[in-house]
Amino acid sequence: MQVKKDKSRIVKKNEYKIPEPTLRRLPWYLAYAQLAKRNGEIYLSSTQIANNIAVDASKVAKDLSYVQISGRTRVGYDLNELVEVLQAFLGFTNSHKAFLFGVGSLGGALLHDDGLNQFGLEIVAGFDVKYELAGTSIHRVPIHHISHFKELQKKTNIQIGVLTVPVDKAQEAAEMMIEGGIKAIWNFTPYRIRVPENIIVQNTSIYAHLAVMFNRLNEENQAKLSPNP
Amino acid sequence: MQVKKDKSRIVKKNEYKIPEPTLRRLPWYLAYAQLAKRNGEIYLSSTQIANNIAVDASKVAKDLSYVQISGRTRVGYDLNELVEVLQAFLGFTNSHKAFLFGVGSLGGALLHDDGLNQFGLEIVAGFDVKYELAGTSIHRVPIHHISHFKELQKKTNIQIGVLTVPVDKAQEAAEMMIEGGIKAIWNFTPYRIRVPENIIVQNTSIYAHLAVMFNRLNEENQAKLSPNP
Repeated sequence: MQVKKDKSRIVKKNEYKIPEPTLRRLPWYLAYAQLAKRNGEIYLSSTQIANNIAVDASKVAKDLSYVQISGRTRVGYDLNELVEVLQAFLGFTNSHKAFLFGVGSLGGALLHDDGLNQFGLEIVAGFDVKYELAGTSIHRVPIHHISHFKELQKKTNIQIGVLTVPVDKAQEAAEMMIEGGIKAIWNFTPYRIRVPENIIVQNTSIYAHLAVMFNRLNEENQAKLSPNP
Repeated sequence: MQVKKDKSRIVKKNEYKIPEPTLRRLPWYLAYAQLAKRNGEIYLSSTQIANNIAVDASKVAKDLSYVQISGRTRVGYDLNELVEVLQAFLGFTNSHKAFLFGVGSLGGALLHDDGLNQFGLEIVAGFDVKYELAGTSIHRVPIHHISHFKELQKKTNIQIGVLTVPVDKAQEAAEMMIEGGIKAIWNFTPYRIRVPENIIVQNTSIYAHLAVMFNRLNEENQAKLSPNP
């Protein structure tokens, strides 16, 4: 299947205003700020954040410079403001509607997770090739046969697709999603899908993290068994 | 609470034999190899892998040099061998038993995911502070009150803990897990937990990936609305 070129203006990956590592760290600062707020704190400095989450203070300050907020010298950021501004900046206060593709084990698990809603992602429907799943629902999200996707996308103009199909269907499913109007793919498969440059892909391969953990645990256990040098 | 120092030999983070980026890429190669095998291929070269998943061929070859497998010049790796060796190397063929801490929305969702089993992680029990959850089960995994954790850990010597408690309980829960004998923590909270050096932590903050996706989608949409320069 040939993916049609989108002729609209494309933001090149290196033209994005905010670096990806910054965007991935900001939620850590938010989590810590929420905790400090719950503990009754009123102000929070970038040094305090840095000390508590083991990131350089200069990096914290640099990351926060992308966000529209200014701290007070020797006092820090107003905590209420910091939490609100970060939540809005990260897109967690808006509701972003999404479709989910592949209602297998992981897809079904994600439909059970209310946390996604709290972080701004609302999965409004799931699609699968299995006819027996069509018409059912998981955790109040309706499941449709994949043949209804294009029609539903036209009606709703939903731009985000969560990809949880089996690995050997990942590329094919991604191409179908893009052809149907999906602009951003949250790829949970361990497969590296190839997409046109204007399509956004976020890879969240949770199983790859398992491999790192198993390996490190194995090395620690072996170190303990062997005599000290 | 004070975490006791483990006096056994510790592997320093920079002493690990295999770099973390390599360990995170190897599952991509495995996924592609499995796909090629299913499509009837018999050999696979690092160049073929590289072309299909958009990683430099030299990086693929370097990464695979950590694995005990040798390819044949001009032919590549034997696919059956490559798949088997990678699966074993990554720890996906062993069953690693784990406890899950915090049976809320995300914790419950993970218990629904059979994919974890396929990748070598078997969650044998969940723990929660809520007394009403004790004695129930999710997807055949029994849920216990957290007060039973230490006793069960002693009986089973389980070393892996999946951390899915609310963010404001993350540090406290991690310390309790470590005190009870957990050696590796798979941290799904957006909170950066602080642990002794001999404890392994893998952070999988799926919500942080959402922030990147929302931001990129927003930039693409704004670029389309603005006239070309």
